[in-house]
Amino acid sequence: MDTQHHGHKLVFFFGDGRAEGDASMKDLLGGKGANLAEMTNIGVPVPAGFTISTEVCTEYYANEKTFPTNLSWRVDAALGQVEKVMNANFGDVDNPLLLSVRSGARASMPGMMDTVLNLGLNDETIVGLIKKSGDERFAYDSYRRFVQMYGNVVMGVEHHAFEACLSEKKKELGLTNDTEITAAVLKELVADFKAIIKKETGNTFPEVPKDQLWGAIAAVFDSWMKDSAITYRRLHGFPEDWGTAVNVQSMVFGNMGDDCATGVCFTRDPATGQNRFYGEYLINAQGEDVVAGIRTPQQITLEGKKAMNSDLPAMAETMPGLYGELVRIYKRLEKHYREMQDMEFTIQQGKLWILQTRTGKRTARAALKIAVDMVGEGLVSKEEAVSRVDPSSLDQLLHPTLDPDADKQVLAVGLAASPGAATGKVVFTANDAESEANKGEAVVLVREETSPEDIHGMHAAKGIITSTGGTTSHAAVVARGMGRPCVSGCGALVIDSESGSFTAGGVTVKRGEWITLDGATGEVMLGKVPTREPSLTGDFAAFMTWVDEVRRLRVRTNADTPNDARVARKFGAEGIGLCRTEHMFFEGDRIIAVREMILAENEKGRRKALAKILPMQRSDFEGIFREMKGFPVTIRLLDPPLHEFIPHDEQGQKEVAKVLKKSIASVKARVDALHEFNPMLGHRGCRLGVTYPEIYEMQVRAIMEAACGLVKKEGFSITPEIMIPLVSNVTEFSFLKERCEAVCQKVMSESGIAISYMIGTMIELPRAALTADAIAQEAEFFSFGTNDLTQTTMGISRDDAGRFLTEYAEKKLISKDPFVSIDQEGVGQLVVMGADKGRQTNPDIKLGVCGEHGGDPDSIAFFEKVGLDYISCSPYRVPIARLAAAQVALSKKNQK
Amino acid sequence: MDTQHHGHKLVFFFGDGRAEGDASMKDLLGGKGANLAEMTNIGVPVPAGFTISTEVCTEYYANEKTFPTNLSWRVDAALGQVEKVMNANFGDVDNPLLLSVRSGARASMPGMMDTVLNLGLNDETIVGLIKKSGDERFAYDSYRRFVQMYGNVVMGVEHHAFEACLSEKKKELGLTNDTEITAAVLKELVADFKAIIKKETGNTFPEVPKDQLWGAIAAVFDSWMKDSAITYRRLHGFPEDWGTAVNVQSMVFGNMGDDCATGVCFTRDPATGQNRFYGEYLINAQGEDVVAGIRTPQQITLEGKKAMNSDLPAMAETMPGLYGELVRIYKRLEKHYREMQDMEFTIQQGKLWILQTRTGKRTARAALKIAVDMVGEGLVSKEEAVSRVDPSSLDQLLHPTLDPDADKQVLAVGLAASPGAATGKVVFTANDAESEANKGEAVVLVREETSPEDIHGMHAAKGIITSTGGTTSHAAVVARGMGRPCVSGCGALVIDSESGSFTAGGVTVKRGEWITLDGATGEVMLGKVPTREPSLTGDFAAFMTWVDEVRRLRVRTNADTPNDARVARKFGAEGIGLCRTEHMFFEGDRIIAVREMILAENEKGRRKALAKILPMQRSDFEGIFREMKGFPVTIRLLDPPLHEFIPHDEQGQKEVAKVLKKSIASVKARVDALHEFNPMLGHRGCRLGVTYPEIYEMQVRAIMEAACGLVKKEGFSITPEIMIPLVSNVTEFSFLKERCEAVCQKVMSESGIAISYMIGTMIELPRAALTADAIAQEAEFFSFGTNDLTQTTMGISRDDAGRFLTEYAEKKLISKDPFVSIDQEGVGQLVVMGADKGRQTNPDIKLGVCGEHGGDPDSIAFFEKVGLDYISCSPYRVPIARLAAAQVALSKKNQK
Repeated sequence: MDTQHHGHKLVFFFGDGRAEGDASMKDLLGGKGANLAEMTNIGVPVPAGFTISTEVCTEYYANEKTFPTNLSWRVDAALGQVEKVMNANFGDVDNPLLLSVRSGARASMPGMMDTVLNLGLNDETIVGLIKKSGDERFAYDSYRRFVQMYGNVVMGVEHHAFEACLSEKKKELGLTNDTEITAAVLKELVADFKAIIKKETGNTFPEVPKDQLWGAIAAVFDSWMKDSAITYRRLHGFPEDWGTAVNVQSMVFGNMGDDCATGVCFTRDPATGQNRFYGEYLINAQGEDVVAGIRTPQQITLEGKKAMNSDLPAMAETMPGLYGELVRIYKRLEKHYREMQDMEFTIQQGKLWILQTRTGKRTARAALKIAVDMVGEGLVSKEEAVSRVDPSSLDQLLHPTLDPDADKQVLAVGLAASPGAATGKVVFTANDAESEANKGEAVVLVREETSPEDIHGMHAAKGIITSTGGTTSHAAVVARGMGRPCVSGCGALVIDSESGSFTAGGVTVKRGEWITLDGATGEVMLGKVPTREPSLTGDFAAFMTWVDEVRRLRVRTNADTPNDARVARKFGAEGIGLCRTEHMFFEGDRIIAVREMILAENEKGRRKALAKILPMQRSDFEGIFREMKGFPVTIRLLDPPLHEFIPHDEQGQKEVAKVLKKSIASVKARVDALHEFNPMLGHRGCRLGVTYPEIYEMQVRAIMEAACGLVKKEGFSITPEIMIPLVSNVTEFSFLKERCEAVCQKVMSESGIAISYMIGTMIELPRAALTADAIAQEAEFFSFGTNDLTQTTMGISRDDAGRFLTEYAEKKLISKDPFVSIDQEGVGQLVVMGADKGRQTNPDIKLGVCGEHGGDPDSIAFFEKVGLDYISCSPYRVPIARLAAAQVALSKKNQK
Repeated sequence: MDTQHHGHKLVFFFGDGRAEGDASMKDLLGGKGANLAEMTNIGVPVPAGFTISTEVCTEYYANEKTFPTNLSWRVDAALGQVEKVMNANFGDVDNPLLLSVRSGARASMPGMMDTVLNLGLNDETIVGLIKKSGDERFAYDSYRRFVQMYGNVVMGVEHHAFEACLSEKKKELGLTNDTEITAAVLKELVADFKAIIKKETGNTFPEVPKDQLWGAIAAVFDSWMKDSAITYRRLHGFPEDWGTAVNVQSMVFGNMGDDCATGVCFTRDPATGQNRFYGEYLINAQGEDVVAGIRTPQQITLEGKKAMNSDLPAMAETMPGLYGELVRIYKRLEKHYREMQDMEFTIQQGKLWILQTRTGKRTARAALKIAVDMVGEGLVSKEEAVSRVDPSSLDQLLHPTLDPDADKQVLAVGLAASPGAATGKVVFTANDAESEANKGEAVVLVREETSPEDIHGMHAAKGIITSTGGTTSHAAVVARGMGRPCVSGCGALVIDSESGSFTAGGVTVKRGEWITLDGATGEVMLGKVPTREPSLTGDFAAFMTWVDEVRRLRVRTNADTPNDARVARKFGAEGIGLCRTEHMFFEGDRIIAVREMILAENEKGRRKALAKILPMQRSDFEGIFREMKGFPVTIRLLDPPLHEFIPHDEQGQKEVAKVLKKSIASVKARVDALHEFNPMLGHRGCRLGVTYPEIYEMQVRAIMEAACGLVKKEGFSITPEIMIPLVSNVTEFSFLKERCEAVCQKVMSESGIAISYMIGTMIELPRAALTADAIAQEAEFFSFGTNDLTQTTMGISRDDAGRFLTEYAEKKLISKDPFVSIDQEGVGQLVVMGADKGRQTNPDIKLGVCGEHGGDPDSIAFFEKVGLDYISCSPYRVPIARLAAAQVALSKKNQK
């Protein structure tokens, strides 16, 4: 198609305000080529050049790596135009034009393909370069670099051959730094390098510039099939038939003297987002020098100079005219691209050239401010603003962060399990954490792994560190839910619980000593590192309003306590998608009643213990319903196996026996009887409901008594959604639904209040998804429990997956952690199947998701595609989910 | 349709050699009605009667339980015919005809619906019955029973009201047995019962026989909707719209005097299958008396009398004429039905009546002999013979069985985990079992549960008993594989390993004492109970030849040792579908090298240890290939997590440390590092291959060296099928396939032999089935591992399922154990999906199944439907699988 449209145009010139391409032609010219053309067209001074199209690359490979016959004269013609514009001639002895030859595919593939710089130099043109620059050393250094680069990229000589020669020469002359090498020595090196090429390849270095050019063009095309490029394409899903373009562009030098300079700049502050020009430059330098940090870069603006407290003159002072030009250009570029730009420029002998412009990277804070400001400036629409902020980046705004200027001594790095920074005294047990916190101490809880018994300690701690477990281990999931910073799977940290200390990075830290952790990076640091509290500015609130205007998916939260519910409402949650009742079982004294229930000999004994738990559960639900007034609340009936509620160690069992006045032997016997080889696939979820119906009956009674009571006393509007977990067969669901409904009816008739309620199920086992048509005939809603669905569909226990998933990622067998971003290809099929089959027999069924994936932007895009009604995630991820939902809604709208 | 065809005929008469229906009309007349008509038609003396069709039942319910208007005169007409044939009149005071009214649906629903007997008696007709029978007491007893039955079934009075009255009366008169009650008292009771009916229902007992008849007909139709009938239909999948027919038939009495009798007989011996007439009878008795065992029944034939060593005269002696008639009838019936018949007859005042004939139940041995004999007699075709033997029953023929005449003291009953009986001295450890067996002792291994470490002890034992675990626990699966009798999950058996004893049924059994177990019933017995060795007669071999002629599915075996392979070949296995290499890892000294490998610090150390295992594995494979010469052998690379190979107890770990010269701390640390929360979903299968490629490399080398060596030295034909387990993503498979192929190529080039081999995978995780299209592009075969696929699809660990699946079955939430018979609705969908998707991208892909389901007849029928190429099961189930495969092929053929 493109071929037709452009009449088989193979080469596209750009320069002096006129280009044959534009930004819309990325498929044909590659991203870089299209952007160079665009900048040229809008009058930005870009070194002239031309782009050989991606179609040539395709033809090159289709014809056994030969160029189209008519390419040669078209390159010659374009080169002629470049010479005219740049007022220099390729291969000219007096006034040589030098070229860069670079790759450029549709999307950026940084560092994956080859580049040749300073092309056109030989023993003759070097004379012209010396003359032009007036700097022999500069000229020979450029020549030396060119021969090395060409020898490597085009002729296949390994770098170390040249490096060894250079080292040898320096050793011979007793020199330490490259900068000490004189022009004469550099000239010798050029000759030496050419000899190396001859020796290694049997071929002579091409002296004719045209030969150099064709060699470089072929090398760039060849690099499209380099292993590294192929791997990169596979990982990013780029198809091979894209091909790459080749960009041939005039070289400009910022290091030809004091009327030369080079710099980088941002159209707005990338750290804060403030609308002020910001950048650094160096006089008589190359681009690398600014980045390398050998010389201290100078500020471009006076404002910047002042802010950085710099003694060095700003560009506004040293080169006021060129500075003025740069300001005009940055304004034009930002207005043109309607985005904050990150630009690179070079000044060669008093002339300003823009080498590159691209969307500037920025902090989350800056992204938000820029998006909001640009809407205010009328530069972008609200919808565009919404689409420009990376949802994941919002996480940075919701948690305390480390002071970036503070010193820190990192002891170990684990997995970034729950974002935010925390500082506190080390404790090793949950009880310790609680008692220290009650005394007003800030504590960090350090454990090998946490279990539901540790919840109170996790609540009390400022942050949590575990030495085992992945990013979806118990500690990680619970910490994210609570918004506590957490570093998990920190294997380098060895805990010695007996002595009450841990060792990491050669340092031993005892109980009570201060440490700091950063859950966004996984770092564990010694001592107190200052942290900054998050400040949600007015921008955030404004932005989130626009977000909510465009999204279709409702966003709920996973919350188990009134406090979690309150936090989630603050973050904009529209109800609770998953309220886990088991966490309530551990709080305070109620664990005693729970254990009494588990250790009871028969149903009568269990009912007696459950009667003690009932009022506590009822008041839990009252608290949660109050926080969520007017919003739906989905409550999952008891899910974990009963053995999770009884201590597994002898000491703990002794205490239980004592409190409950049982023999230690009977407690042990019960623990043994409850032991499971694979608890994940064991006696849990609705299986508990089937074998001990009295547990679910008590829970449903607590839910309904709380709801009816609030309606009666406080004039509430509430629709409890009762969720039965781990259903795999409609028979289980019907059995339990019948019993739950009986309790609901009973409570309503007792209280004289009729409320509407729903009974539904989690779809978290493959069989539930496969038979969703049958289940939907009975269930009023489905909530996809994609954590467990991932575990069973892939056959991976998330508690154990750490030891091989890391290696899978390293060996490129998986591209993403399936517990972080849903495996669309496999697990996703079951979600689609479950949703489709469910709607088939029950068109009104409400569909949601309550796994960890509910807070992952890629997964949210998938759930939008499946057409779910809502997603549910931990409180701190609610804003992220809202934004991700908005973006996928926008992208759907734009596709229409 | 039927309505049209029979011109709305509602009532079908049968009697005196002429019936309006026949055996083909089961849908309309029900099974019983059609059969009564059929017998009448072929001249068997059946008491005359008529059948009211199932359509009347349907209309009855469609019209709010009212009868069609024209039913009444049709019943009258048929009743008239019956009166004529039976030479008696309904309601006649001198010569009353009495009737039975019974239900009869298309398929038998024993005891689920209602029956009324002796209908037609009232205070007037009783006089006629006394006259006819000459026995006043008999007559009043019949009357009393009728009033009670009618009062209960038709009028809804509970039995206990009548029973209480009867007891009261007996108490009043000081009587113990019903037989002591005189005619006069019975007469009083009739009046008392009528009074009870009046009191309980407010309605009078109907004295008019026609009213009685219509009441009974309505009651039978009503019983179609009784709870018990509804449940039975649901469990057996019978649709409600079948309806039931009503059979109204003349009563005949075997207890009217010494010219009366009643009996049951079989046309062939149901225990042995021998072609000889066999049966029992009683003079002047009712059918119940033969069954109840109050009187000793007499033999029908002289042969039987002799065999039973009976003093009582045979029917051939007491009633030679009637005996002759019975012989003629049984021969006619067997020839007519072409099946062994189980008949009931009654002789009333010198006249023989056949009340029922049906296919006779028989032992497996008898079934086989009858089928083979009938082919010899030209009575049935080979295909019919094949279709008549229940595949599961073959199990009885392949194992030792308990002597049925022996006394036994049952201590406990567990799950029937692996069939066969075994006797031996009790041992509690695998090592004990082995050392005792080496001394020539017969031992029974008793454990809480077995693990792979116990394999050698299981091999050494005659039988295995476990106190925990289900029918698919480790012990059960391994025992079935080895053909060892096993009782699992015997919770009533409490093991005290410290004292070396167990307690069950109040008896304590010490190490070294004799016990017996029956793996077919789950019984554990004290002492030695004599057992019988299986004798596979010529009949078995002949029968299995016919079986193999008709089946399409190939039948392979799951075998891990040359010995298993040999047994399986004997049972007709056509290759190995699953050879588990891990069992080899435990044998003899090699476990030491395996542990050395696991405890090695790095790859080099692992390779060193693997080099020691290589020659052992090679010789394993040589042995297996030799047994399976010419047949395919599928070898699964290492599957279980590594922690299964290291002892979990401190003592065991100490020994390992000593043998391997490691510190106990390092062994413990490794065990801790390897610990998993859910081993089923852990670091196992191909995940081991990915993280430790050297293990699979060694195994593939051993396979290929064995195969190439045999081809070279012994002129073998062998195609090893290398199977990679637990694949969930094609990336894993490709990664490992590449490495395996490299080893295969290397070994072939080293040995100078090229053989064909295949590399395929198990489909045992939902994700593998969901993405089978991608995997099939790389894999040459799929073997559905339906054990693990069931575990993951349903989210049930088979090791832990026992504690709730039993309750699920009791509560009717599941109809079959999904580990015994594949869950077609859920797991089956994934098998279909896997097969379809696999064939979609690789039409030549070989498809098999190697889970426990490969030996289950219902599952085999499903696999035939899916079109798999083969099934694989444990050696002792191979004949069962062959027969089941043949039967499903036949049923498919007959459907065409």
